[in-house]
This record gives sequence, C-alpha cells and structure tokens, in this order.
Amino acid sequence: MDLGPVIMQWLDELAECSEDPAELTRRYLTPEHAQAAELVMRRMREAGMGARLDAVGNVVGHFPGRRPGARRLILGSHLDTVRNAGKYDGALGVMLPVACLRWLHERGRRFDCPIDVIAFGDEEGVRFQATLIGSQAVAGDLDLTMLSAVDDDGVRLEEAMREFGLDPDAVGEASYRPDEVAAYVEVHIEQGPVLEAENRPVGVVTSIAGAVRLRVEVMGRAGHAGTVPMNLRRDALAAASEAVIAVERICLDTPGTVGTVGMLRTVSGAVNVIPGVVEFTIDVRGESDGRRRVALDRIDEAFAEIAGRRGVLFDCVPVHETGARRCSPRLMRRLGEAVEAEGIEVRRLPSGAGHDAMAMARLTDIGMLFVRCKEGISHHPAESMTAADAEVAARVLLRFLERFDPDEREMDDR
Amino acid sequence: MDLGPVIMQWLDELAECSEDPAELTRRYLTPEHAQAAELVMRRMREAGMGARLDAVGNVVGHFPGRRPGARRLILGSHLDTVRNAGKYDGALGVMLPVACLRWLHERGRRFDCPIDVIAFGDEEGVRFQATLIGSQAVAGDLDLTMLSAVDDDGVRLEEAMREFGLDPDAVGEASYRPDEVAAYVEVHIEQGPVLEAENRPVGVVTSIAGAVRLRVEVMGRAGHAGTVPMNLRRDALAAASEAVIAVERICLDTPGTVGTVGMLRTVSGAVNVIPGVVEFTIDVRGESDGRRRVALDRIDEAFAEIAGRRGVLFDCVPVHETGARRCSPRLMRRLGEAVEAEGIEVRRLPSGAGHDAMAMARLTDIGMLFVRCKEGISHHPAESMTAADAEVAARVLLRFLERFDPDEREMDDR
Repeated sequence: MDLGPVIMQWLDELAECSEDPAELTRRYLTPEHAQAAELVMRRMREAGMGARLDAVGNVVGHFPGRRPGARRLILGSHLDTVRNAGKYDGALGVMLPVACLRWLHERGRRFDCPIDVIAFGDEEGVRFQATLIGSQAVAGDLDLTMLSAVDDDGVRLEEAMREFGLDPDAVGEASYRPDEVAAYVEVHIEQGPVLEAENRPVGVVTSIAGAVRLRVEVMGRAGHAGTVPMNLRRDALAAASEAVIAVERICLDTPGTVGTVGMLRTVSGAVNVIPGVVEFTIDVRGESDGRRRVALDRIDEAFAEIAGRRGVLFDCVPVHETGARRCSPRLMRRLGEAVEAEGIEVRRLPSGAGHDAMAMARLTDIGMLFVRCKEGISHHPAESMTAADAEVAARVLLRFLERFDPDEREMDDR
Repeated sequence: MDLGPVIMQWLDELAECSEDPAELTRRYLTPEHAQAAELVMRRMREAGMGARLDAVGNVVGHFPGRRPGARRLILGSHLDTVRNAGKYDGALGVMLPVACLRWLHERGRRFDCPIDVIAFGDEEGVRFQATLIGSQAVAGDLDLTMLSAVDDDGVRLEEAMREFGLDPDAVGEASYRPDEVAAYVEVHIEQGPVLEAENRPVGVVTSIAGAVRLRVEVMGRAGHAGTVPMNLRRDALAAASEAVIAVERICLDTPGTVGTVGMLRTVSGAVNVIPGVVEFTIDVRGESDGRRRVALDRIDEAFAEIAGRRGVLFDCVPVHETGARRCSPRLMRRLGEAVEAEGIEVRRLPSGAGHDAMAMARLTDIGMLFVRCKEGISHHPAESMTAADAEVAARVLLRFLERFDPDEREMDDR
C-alpha cells in the first residue's frame, strides 16, 4: 500500500515549518503555524477534501459522505509543537488520516458519513501557557477569558488571532454541535516505551489519565553537619527522600497509576548544613479518577507517617487537577477489530499524556490509536518512529473507516 | 566567684565591634577586627598581661611564669566571625581565659609556666575563603601562597595586612617553636546539642573530626511523567533519594561518624518530567580517620548496589578532605579531673566542627573544653549560652591551670 513512506515524507516536509532553523519549534498563530496550515490544506485538497481555517486557526478538512444528514466522524491531532520538538507528536495524527483519505479518494471510495480531519492549532500550550485551545474551541468549551492571555512578548491571544487573520469575536464559530458528530478518533505516537518493550506496532487507548500536581514543602531543622549527632537531627532532605521513595513505591503498587517527583531542591542549603527546608513537586496520574485518588490517599498516609516519625512538617498544595477521560468502548472495540484484522494482537493501554481527545470528550465519544515510538522519547529531537509502523497504523485506520457506522450506539455489555 | 557575669558582659561588649550595626559580622583585618583587638588587649593588660598584635594580626597576651625557661601553655580561640554571627563562637575562648587570669592576677597568683592567650584573627575564613590563617601562622604552618588570596572586593591578603599595619614579609615571625610550647587548650561552645540534651554544662573533647566532602552526580534517564510506566523508569531522583537515606543509615550505624547531604537538586527538571540528572553533596566526618573511611566504604558499596539495581550511574568526586585530630590523652585526663573537682560527671565527646586547635595540633598537644550552648545553634544570632555555664567553665579552667605541669609527658597507658 506504501502509505508509510508517504506519511514519513509529509512529516519531514511539515517539520521544515519551524521558528528556528536549527530545531523544530512551531507555536500557535506564528507565521510558521500559517505555513504549516497551508501545507496541510494543500495535502487535504489533493485528497479530494475541502479545506479551510476555522475561527481559532485550526485547519479543518472535509471528506464528503454519501448519505445526507449522516453524523460526522472527526479525525485529527495538533500542528503546534513544544520548543525543540520531535516531528511526530501531533503531526502524525494529522498527516496519517489525510494520507488514508487520499488513498481512498484515488480509488473513488466514499463512505456514508462525512469525515472531517482537524489539525488543531494549539495543544501543547507553549505560547499562551494554556493547553488545548484548538480542541476546546471545537468542543465549544473554550474559556473566553483566555483571549486576554499573553505570550512571552506581551502579545495577547486576541491580538495574535487578528494578526493571523482571525476575528476573536467569532471564536464561537469554531464549535461543532454534539448532534452532528458521531465520534472523534486520534492517531498519536505513544510517547512512552510500552509498545516498543512488547514489540507491538500499535495499541488501542483505554483512557487518558487524569492528573494532579502538588507542590510540597518539608520543614525540618537546619543544623551544623559536624556537630549534630545523627539521632538528634530533623533532616528535611532525609524526610523528603523517604517521600520520593514512597511516591514511587505506592504508584508501583497501585495499578493504573504513575507518580513522579520531577523537581526537588534543598532551600538555601550548604554542603556543611543539615537541610532545614526542602521543596519538591509531585505529579500523579491515574487511568481512572478513583485509582488516582487511592494513590493520593496512600501518599498522604505515607507522608504523615514520615512526618510523625522524623519530627518534620509536610505542607502539600495541589496546583493542578484534571479528571481522567475514558475512551468509548465501542470505538475501542472497533479499533481493536481493525488491529486484529491486520493480524496483530490487540494491546489496550492507557495514555499517561494529555491529548486533544481529552477536550473532544466534552463534544463526543473518543477513541485513540497509539503508534510505537523509539525508546518512549518525545518532546525531543530524538523522537522517532518507523515508516513500517506508520503503514500499519494507516492500514488499521483504513479498516476502521471501512467498518465505521455513525449510528452505532454503545452496547450495554460494555 | 562571679566570673560568669563578667565574661558575659565582656562578650556583649566585644559583639559591638561589628561591620554591620544590625548584625554581628567581624571579618579578618577589618577596622572592626582592629577595634575588637584593642578591646581584648585592654582587658589583657587589666589582667596583668603583656599584650601585642603578632605578625598576622593575632592578639597575643602574655601572663608571665615564675620559672625561667619553662614551656608555655597557650590558651585561646578566634576573634573573627561568620556573617550574621552569634556572640560566643570563638570569642568565649578568648575572653574566658583572660577573665580567669585577671581573677588570678587580682589575687597575686602566678604559676611556674608562662601562659599565652591568643585571639586568632582568622578561623572562619569568611574573608579570604581559607580557614585557620591565624592559628596556622602561629603553628608555623601557613601556606605563603595564601598571601595573594583575594576577598570579595578584590583586595589581596597581603594588601589587607599592610592596611592593618602589618608587614606581610614578616608573617613567619608569628610562629612559635615547638620546644617552647607545652600545650594548647581551647574553650569553645559546643555548637551542637549533645551537652544540652544530657544536661551537662561542659564536656571534654576527644578529637576534632576529620571530614571529607564529595560532589555526586546521578545519571538516570529523563522521561515523560505520564507515559513511562513505573517499572520501566531509571529515575535519577529516586536513586539519589535512596542514596540520601543510605548516607543517613550508614552514619547512624557507624559509631563516631556523622554524614550529611546538605544540597540536592534535580538538574533542568520539570514537574512532568522523570528526573534524568540529580546533583548532591555529601559531608562525612569521623572522630578518627579509620571510622570515616569505614563509613565512606559502606557508602560506596550502597551506591554501587543502588546504581546496579536501578540502572543509573553515580559519579562521586571528593572536593575536600581533612584528617581527624586527636586530643592529647594527658590533657583530656587533666581537664576531666578539673571537671570532676567541680562535682560534674565527665562527658567526653568528639568535635564535629573544626577549630583553631586543629591547626595548633601541628605545633603541640591540644585539649579542648566544650561549653553547653542553647539548642546546638551556632553561626546564627540565636547562638546562646548562660552566665552560669560560663562560670562553671571558668572554674574548670582555673582548676586545670592550678594543676598544669608543663613538663608532664604522655603516659604509656593512654
């Protein structure tokens, strides 16, 4: 079928739209975003699709259906990147569906239901420190106060929109009505090492993890590193170290969760001073909100035990929380059937990272297909995947599209 | 005897010689050092002592002996302070002996051997980033390349000496000949919590701990906090946390050692990234070099086990090492007898902090008497001790002086 090499070439081409010639950085509403959008619209038109920019700068491609009034299937992912990014995060979920639709178009194939492919303008949130602007607008869930958010140069989102040729007063026009949409399906690199470790090209996502982030301050008692005997110390770092190990152990022991202490530092420490204050962050994610809460409760208990035993204080402040989003059982089943039809055993796995599908879940049922990437590396120039895996994912998506029924409802035996 | 209140008053007076009116800071060779030296010399002369500045700015007071040619006993400590210091660190070991000698002088008492009291100009090393300049010069052990060390304002030590009225070419004149000195005895606040915890006013020091300082880098593998399952991680911070706990446990289990991780930080970390690199420091001290080495060997073993199990690398670089200095058994015994004569049970304890006695050990036998301080706090304005404890320490020192025999040799049954 040879879709893999085509997709890889398109992704290389897209990666040339970068603010920095030495590395890939493409933020929302920049000239490079416009350049990438042009490229995507050209590819869409080659695939027999209508293509336009919507009110917030998403590219929307339309592959017409045969049956008037049938609900749409939306495919897509995002065009923006982090700074110094890889070529596949987001872009794969735009180019792969367009390549599939071109293949169908070249063979004169049409389905009952229309298919829209959306290349969301902002998912990473690098420019305005708020993620998912593109998909929230499409889901009719964008907080309009966001329009006054400013970027690092002091440019407000609404100003950036005008400069891009958009009308910030028309943002509402980007949204779809729930009754006109049948489902949203996103293809994305895994950004993790599971599929590679198990030698599988693709996997079906079960849910997008919810996350909570905490800032923790541990207060012990500073002291002279030479004169205070070990048994008379209240070492804030020793306590924090036990806390780090506790987070790790608890998330190992609580299925469906991961927990990370990403930053830790001794505050005004010195080589010869027993640490009095330590600050660290915690990021806990769970396939379901219930599991995440179980892990957090266990972490709370563990910290209380450490604090009591060591005579230190833990002050934990939540700074961010998002709920988990379940993928639709019928879409998981249909994606799984398509995977099996390619002779591949179905691996279901949760997504620990956030995706546009999270925002789209407010509008419609969501499904996601993960594609294996190299060493789980993402948000980095070393992000990599193979043409062979792109080919497999494209064949799976084509099989899914062939069988997709916009009127199918969830069955009770989910 | 009422020496306690006198000593406390003199220490309050001395604390007024400060570079900053709001807090006590008195660095080597500053005008405030000169002011403090003047005050000490006045108190020495009131005690019937000769008093002068030596070639590096130490104050040297001389209490003449009766027997010509008898070896000298040197008492003393330092006049310089850290920034925002307490009033007792160093200053106590200068003022307390002078007060004792004044008491003896007022009663016409003299001993066979002459007694010198030295107020060392630099022990803390705040100004020229090198500690013990004063006592190293007296011990004949000062590295002359130090003369070109510069302070924060770019002033070289030799320039600062000239400005203070000293001749840097004459630095060698500050040194004593080993054959003219019988012993060095220093009174100092404990700077630790042991005496207070055991409710003892004074203690006899057994040794000044040697120390080694290491810089450690832990290299794991950075990754996405959401997408990498717990069992596929090589988290540098989790490994470093186990290392912190290992240092603590090993030094708890190795008598006569203390170990501290004073600074630790995740390098270029983020709340949602598994730490790839962590840096930390280790400070390990031991009553003897052998014990310190035992602890270090155990730490090495523990780190190797953690590294192997977690698939991370530890890179440990020693950045500082000093050997332990044993106190003289005969001086410990004589100080202990003086403590017992005051009806106090003798508590022997090591010094985890460095003192002028470390440098003086190159010249002669050393002994130290520790005085209880409040909550072990030092190098801080909250540093505190009581007049009653100063009184006890003065009585102990007077008893020690009464019995001191400059010709006594170490016995074999040490």
